[in-house]
Amino acid sequence: MTPTLPAAPKAVLIDLAGVLHVGDQAIPGAVQALQRLRATGLPLRFLTNTTRSPRKAIVDLLVGLGFDVAADEIHTAALATRQLVLSRGLRPHWLVHPDIAAEMGASDPNPNVVVLGDAGPHFTFDGLNAAFRLLMAGCPLIAMARNRYFKEPDGFTLDLGAFVVALEYGAGVTAEIVGKPAAPFFLGPLAELGVAPSEAVLIGDDLRDDIGGAQAVGIAGILVRTGKFRPGDDANPEVTPTRVVEDFSAAVALLVGGG
Amino acid sequence: MTPTLPAAPKAVLIDLAGVLHVGDQAIPGAVQALQRLRATGLPLRFLTNTTRSPRKAIVDLLVGLGFDVAADEIHTAALATRQLVLSRGLRPHWLVHPDIAAEMGASDPNPNVVVLGDAGPHFTFDGLNAAFRLLMAGCPLIAMARNRYFKEPDGFTLDLGAFVVALEYGAGVTAEIVGKPAAPFFLGPLAELGVAPSEAVLIGDDLRDDIGGAQAVGIAGILVRTGKFRPGDDANPEVTPTRVVEDFSAAVALLVGGG
Repeated sequence: MTPTLPAAPKAVLIDLAGVLHVGDQAIPGAVQALQRLRATGLPLRFLTNTTRSPRKAIVDLLVGLGFDVAADEIHTAALATRQLVLSRGLRPHWLVHPDIAAEMGASDPNPNVVVLGDAGPHFTFDGLNAAFRLLMAGCPLIAMARNRYFKEPDGFTLDLGAFVVALEYGAGVTAEIVGKPAAPFFLGPLAELGVAPSEAVLIGDDLRDDIGGAQAVGIAGILVRTGKFRPGDDANPEVTPTRVVEDFSAAVALLVGGG
Repeated sequence: MTPTLPAAPKAVLIDLAGVLHVGDQAIPGAVQALQRLRATGLPLRFLTNTTRSPRKAIVDLLVGLGFDVAADEIHTAALATRQLVLSRGLRPHWLVHPDIAAEMGASDPNPNVVVLGDAGPHFTFDGLNAAFRLLMAGCPLIAMARNRYFKEPDGFTLDLGAFVVALEYGAGVTAEIVGKPAAPFFLGPLAELGVAPSEAVLIGDDLRDDIGGAQAVGIAGILVRTGKFRPGDDANPEVTPTRVVEDFSAAVALLVGGG
């Protein structure tokens, strides 16, 4: 079921990579579009499955590109995962990018869960095999996301999901996913704001994880044709976005008029 | 359907790692059991999905452990893959272990297929990502095998299959598998010998790829409780081996008596 666009949205959830920027380049018009959206006074939350950078680095990148965002508006899959691990009192073995290692904390010498983030170029056979052996010994697997790929300035790049399925297949287990498209990752920020899913809108470039995840919990999804968007995403039989527009600027125009 | 054990088998197919040896250690009694099997004069073929070593190194290892095997009796998934690529006139991008690179030949600078072997510790993010980008550009994926894991002296180790599913998931493609459990990998050696599947027996330690693959084409499968065998493999609802025995020595006793 495709949710309908609320006549007067009360909150907007916005994906970052591929929507506001690609790598260290702002998407054309996105800085100004965010200013127009800000002018409405609508509460905004930014949801990212990027787990290669700590939240501070994400804020610094966005602010450096001219975007008006504050750290406490940004929900990262990595911080949500850390919170989950803490709340359950687990002893994690972190397999994550060195840039977020400090944000996550140290691995436990006697772990009872394997926690996977996007280590990117730091994924090694030995690191994956160490995690695999813990899974074979009975540890469950938590993954920050299971995205397939994302777009960097020089082309598409394998994302965390490929390594999640590698470990799942090797060890015969199924990972628990914390970031998009998991329902709590969308519903948590809305609950904090006191906004119902039917009153919210999400803007994203990932058909399955952004749009599919949001719409599965009743949030209208606007798919943009930037970032990882590929021809055919707007005619996929499994996920039909509430709207498909050219870019973030067009999405904002749809919500607030003008543009 | 579980094939029945032929009263008088006319050929025996034998898996190597986990059946005759684990790493550089012979399985106890296996050298002598192979001698007893040899004494019957039955034609033997050795089928291995190991793609980290060229055939010569596999022969040298086995002979060094005391096994009576000849190079032309050994069918490796790597050589079968090379043959397939040549027969189709493909331009391969090889992502393989450096030890078999010479046996496979050079990658084509303008590839039209990605071919994956078990690079083991030589799998890197950059190597996987380069293959991923070729898949995203439309190259099909051929994999030498899709085994989940194998046993080394220090524990279970991730096998090629984990990296096959990683690329399949990332790029949204399905690999063509050349080694076990693909039917031609079992049927080819039997065709050369002029032996029907119902007259042959396979001995292996991998429930799905050895036993499942052989039995799917009508070859009786004897599962040994060595190598990667894990408790429960002998009570799996999906694959019921023709027989389950303790080790290679017991399998030979079943076929030729004595032991």
